[in-house]
This record gives sequence, C-alpha cells and structure tokens, in this order.
Amino acid sequence: MNYVFSNRISALKPSAIREILKVTSGGRCIPFAAGNPAPEVFPADAIEALSSAILKEQPVTALQYGVTEGFAPLRERIAKDLKARFNIGREFDEVIITAGAQQVVDLASKVFLNEGDTVICEAPSFIGSLNCFRSYNAVLKGIPVESDGMNIELLEEALNTDKNVKMIYTIPNFQNPSGCTMSLEKRKALYALALKHNVIILEDNPYGELRYKGEDIPSIKSFDDEGIVIYAGSYSKIISPGMRVGFSLAPAEITAKMTVGKQASDVHSPMLCQMILDRWLNDYDTAAHIKFIRSVYSRKMELMCDKLDSELGGRISYVRPEGGLFIWCELDSSVNMLDFCKEAANNDVAVVPGTAFMASESDCTNCFRLNFSTPTDEQIVRGIEILGNVCKKFN
Amino acid sequence: MNYVFSNRISALKPSAIREILKVTSGGRCIPFAAGNPAPEVFPADAIEALSSAILKEQPVTALQYGVTEGFAPLRERIAKDLKARFNIGREFDEVIITAGAQQVVDLASKVFLNEGDTVICEAPSFIGSLNCFRSYNAVLKGIPVESDGMNIELLEEALNTDKNVKMIYTIPNFQNPSGCTMSLEKRKALYALALKHNVIILEDNPYGELRYKGEDIPSIKSFDDEGIVIYAGSYSKIISPGMRVGFSLAPAEITAKMTVGKQASDVHSPMLCQMILDRWLNDYDTAAHIKFIRSVYSRKMELMCDKLDSELGGRISYVRPEGGLFIWCELDSSVNMLDFCKEAANNDVAVVPGTAFMASESDCTNCFRLNFSTPTDEQIVRGIEILGNVCKKFN
Repeated sequence: MNYVFSNRISALKPSAIREILKVTSGGRCIPFAAGNPAPEVFPADAIEALSSAILKEQPVTALQYGVTEGFAPLRERIAKDLKARFNIGREFDEVIITAGAQQVVDLASKVFLNEGDTVICEAPSFIGSLNCFRSYNAVLKGIPVESDGMNIELLEEALNTDKNVKMIYTIPNFQNPSGCTMSLEKRKALYALALKHNVIILEDNPYGELRYKGEDIPSIKSFDDEGIVIYAGSYSKIISPGMRVGFSLAPAEITAKMTVGKQASDVHSPMLCQMILDRWLNDYDTAAHIKFIRSVYSRKMELMCDKLDSELGGRISYVRPEGGLFIWCELDSSVNMLDFCKEAANNDVAVVPGTAFMASESDCTNCFRLNFSTPTDEQIVRGIEILGNVCKKFN
Repeated sequence: MNYVFSNRISALKPSAIREILKVTSGGRCIPFAAGNPAPEVFPADAIEALSSAILKEQPVTALQYGVTEGFAPLRERIAKDLKARFNIGREFDEVIITAGAQQVVDLASKVFLNEGDTVICEAPSFIGSLNCFRSYNAVLKGIPVESDGMNIELLEEALNTDKNVKMIYTIPNFQNPSGCTMSLEKRKALYALALKHNVIILEDNPYGELRYKGEDIPSIKSFDDEGIVIYAGSYSKIISPGMRVGFSLAPAEITAKMTVGKQASDVHSPMLCQMILDRWLNDYDTAAHIKFIRSVYSRKMELMCDKLDSELGGRISYVRPEGGLFIWCELDSSVNMLDFCKEAANNDVAVVPGTAFMASESDCTNCFRLNFSTPTDEQIVRGIEILGNVCKKFN
C-alpha cells in the first residue's frame, strides 16, 4: 500500500543531522552529541529502596489507573516547592504531571496552536521542541540568542510584524544549545512584550538547577501576575530521565485544557514513577544531591573548556557557560561546519551540527554543540584532542 | 488574559457525562462506571521483586534516557509472542512501545489524519479514542455495532459515499462499550473493504485475552498481508494499567513515522516500566496469570448478569458477553436513559450514559454501560438491586 501520511508528520523529515548521528551511534564513538546525565549521578540505591517500599505499602495505587493530572501528593509537593524556593506560582496556577518537559511542550502546543500559527523561539533552540511545534504545522520564527538571551529588539519587531504569533518559547537558563542565560532585564522585557501582544510564554527550565557559578536569576514565571506563562519543569536532569517525570505549572484554565489533551494522548503518567519521585523528594536531601551533581558537571565543564582553549584556541569561539550541559562553539569562517562535523564523526567523535537547532535547517550557522555530562573525563580529554586535530586539517 | 485556545482542544467540551461522573466520584459510590482491573489481580509481589532486581542489576539502563522505539528486548519478545500465539506480524511489521494502547491511537492519528479527514468508528465506541480523533479535528462517522460486530453494509455505504475516510477504528473483541465481538466473516469483509478503498485499519485489542467462554477469533491483523493494519495492544488489563505500557505492531514505514511522532510527544516511555514488563513476561507464567484473571472476571460477570436478570428482567435488554469488562444495557423505551443514570447517581451507583460513546453526543441511544471488574461481589449484588429499584420508579 502507498501510505498517504498527514501533512504534519511529513513536515518532520529525517535530516542531515540524523544521518551524522547514525554514523556515530556505535559504541566506539566519543559521545559529545547527546544530552544524557552522567550515569554516576543517578541515585539508584535510593530509587530501588523507594520502589520496593511503594510496591509493598501501596501496591494498588502504584499499579491501578490514576488521574490524568497526576499523583496528588506529588503535585502539591511541586507547587509548594516552586513557591517556597522561587516564588513561582499564584493562586490561579495549577500543576500537572507530564511525561518529561517534552510533553509540556506538546500539550501547550495542542492547547494553543492552530495550523499556521507562529511560534517565536530562540535561534538556535532545542530540536525536540522545534520538532514538536512542527508536528502541529506551526510556523517557526527564530530570534537570535545573544550572550544575555534573545535579542529583544528583533523580538519586538517580530511581534509587531506577525499578527499570527500565539506563543513565545524560551529556555532562559543555560539554553540548549547555546548555553546562554537570559538577563533579568530581558526576562522582564520579554514578559512585557508578550503581555502587550496577548501572546503565551512557554518557559522551559530543564537546566535551572544546574548552575555552577554566578547567581540565580528569577524565572519569568515568578513575575507572572497576569497568567500568561506556562512553566515547564523536569526531574530528568536531577534524578532520572528514564523515569520520564516532568510537570507544568500554568493557570488552572490552561491546565484544565492540557489535562483533556493529555487524557487523549496517554491517559496519565505511570504511577510508580510519580510515586518514586514523590517519596524521593520527601525522604531524601534533594539540595545535597543537586550540590553533588553540580560538582560533577562543573568539573567536567571546566575540563572541557580548558581543553578547548588549549586544543582549539583561536580556531573556535565560545562563551564559557555558568551552568547546564552544553557548550556552543563557533568555527572560524574558514572552516565549513558540516564538513567539520562529518570529519569528527569519521574520527569517532560525535558532535551535533548547529543547523539541527535552527528554526529552518537552511538557516546559516557555523556552530556546533558539545555536551560534557555524558562523556567520562578521559573521553573529554581525548575527544577534544581529536577535534583539535580535525580542525587543523581544515586550515 | 482571555485565552484563545486551539480549535482542536475547543472541540473537546466537558460533557453532560462528565458532570454525572463528577457526582459519583466520591468514595461512597458503587463503581460500575470505570473500566479498572480488579485490584486483587495485580501481581504486586512479582513486580516488587522484579523492580528491585532491575534497579540493582541494570540501574543505568533503567534510569537513563532510552530510545523512542522502546526497550529492544521487550519489543522482540512482543513480536515473537504475537507471531507464535496469534500469527500476527509479517516481515514488514515492527513493534514500538507506547504509553498504553491510548498512545497508539494518538500516534496513528498524528501520522495519518489531516484536519477534516474522516475516521470510521463503531457506534458506540471507546470514548478515549473518540476524543483522541476529535483532538485532531477529525470527522467521526459511527457505524452501528450488531451482536456480531459492525454493520458491514453500512460500512460499505460510508466508504462509497465519503471519499475523505482515512482510517477505520475497531475494537473487534468484547468491544467497549457494547461487549460484542466481531465475527470472522465480518473481520474479513472489513479488511477487504479497507483494502479496496485504500483505508488504514486501526485494530484496538485491549481485551483480547479476557475471553471467558467460546473460541478465540483470528485478529484482523493476522490476515494483513498487505500492510494496512495498525494493531494496538496493551498490558493494562492483564498486568497493570498504572504502568502505562502498550504497543503497536505496524508496517515499518508507518512505525518509523509513529516513532518520530512519539519523539515529539514524550521522547520515550519510562524504562523501568518497560523492563519490569519484559522480565515479567520472561520469568513468570503469563498464561497461568491470565487464567486466574479470567476466573475472577468470569465469576463477576455471571454474577452481574444473573442479578440483572432477576432485578431488571423485562425492563432492560442486553447481550451476555463472552469476555471483556463491560455489559451494555438497553432500557425500555418508556424510560429516559439520562434521567435513569442521574437517578442511579443520586442513589450512589455510577453507570455511564450511552451517549458518551457515540460519535456525536446528540446521537440517540437508550443504553448505559456497566463494568463488572472494578466492583466487589457485594457491590455488584447491592448495586444491581439499587438499579432495579431506580428502574421501577420510572414505570
């Protein structure tokens, strides 16, 4: 049979990037392309003990159908924690539990986007979210990211020009892939512009807890008195991505629609994973665990940056991030980025070509993305040496 | 802010049925409205032991990101089992793991439906799937279910008339809510018609293992040499719905698109749940467990039917099912079904009004749905007595 697929799914073509990633998916490759947490930071013993206790003490709750909004004690705990620690959440806001922050992006899209609506995103931005918007046949408008976040003048221009904008998507902390963090001033400007233009903000904050230096900056949601921000959070980076537990905090009216959307997608998220997370947050010292993760990643980041300086200094430019998982490197204009990435892959080092993160893959960039959480220290040292040698070939 | 929601989500209105269910969601109510497995059939001890072993032996695999297609050993096991037991699956087919069978419906819709496309479904049919199709702005065309399945003449007429049909959705075994099973003859006729009209079949089989009498009938997918059937399976009814593990078996070309769609929705299903299921299928006697479940549900079903005969005989008509979880009762035309359901709720018995299951809620039906797996034996006896008294009030 000749399958006639939907327009939305046909828009998601396998890309040149996927082809490169395929080459590097073998076990031999040094993994700078992924965004996986380091295996050594998983609290596996604690999770084993919690899972066991839950299945002995509350087996029916863990194994039976649950409500779509999520496990009530976990929802309350998250809401309380966000309020106490970050002043995030107002009377009108509600939490729902999702399959990672990815599903928040999916549900926000489902609830707000008609086909052809525009989503303003950072350029570059997270490929998983861009693909999600594409799967709703949205039009993507990328606004360049500077070292202190989105270019606000260009954002304003886009909002003035395009009357079809429904949503602004931003990762304000240690943005994926640029590593940049939006300044407080820009966060406030972005909020004011969205309010003026009646546009929803989708604030995605998977890396907020991964700050290695500098001071926390208030989230956009923390000054959302008007109820225009959907905040997406995740435990993937601080406990376990394989458990797929994230959450959304948004005005109850929006949350109700997202709940209806989630019911039609997957009914609810697995109870066992939600209950493990709930007990973990209650029984264990999350702050100490995050401190431990920060120490591991901070060391890896500095190691990678130091090696980049010694092996590729003068051939690439990058901003040393204050947190997160990624370093965004721009090659000297004399080097073709895609050729560089292919040659790196041929030498068993996987990096992601910057075009993967653009609103349109034809958008120009000479950057590539490095991840430092997945590789071992030894892999970081050897991998950057290899990239240095690859780079030399092009000069 | 005045939220402007998408057309697709606005189509999912809270319904009269939801309002009735709200009244009955308190703890006092006798639960004939849900479709939950009986808590006493969950293999909780086994799952506790397996979870513990997995987190000790393979902690990184269980807690790290996985691939979107699902845990490879589980995919292989399911494919092998379907082939060996039911002759389901050809060379060209592939399994992906999903968040219950609900997500198969969602992904099949995402991959095939453009807005305005028609989905042919049974009338009545499962509300979760109908809402999923609605969330893609599909047009629903309901074909009446007879005691041996969809009316094939009306199906053919619909296919001849409506050139926009993309998909036929069917639950051939112990259909939700009618309890009816499609005959082999009708399955073959449906397949031939779909093939002739270039239409995909979405075969949803959550209850196939729950046969209490009679002989298994080959699934439609078992004669799919042409690759037009997406088969949706689930472990919700035989192991645990709270774990949210289902699967799809479909031609690789379709599976590849569904995988891209799933990646944009939730990245992948939780690893721990997939791995628990994989080990359970390997280490435990699934056939014996299913036999145990059948014995429990068979008893409950006969109990409920016997009580229906003694308490409501002559006032309702129904077909005693051969399996599944539901009994579909038609009230005498002298009784208004919605009034009956409301009065039952007022007397603390929750049943679902038949209109919930129609392609359009304005479609006429004087039926309601009863579930016998969730209530205890005592609740079944007392609840049907109450329904008998409620019914008398209307005569």
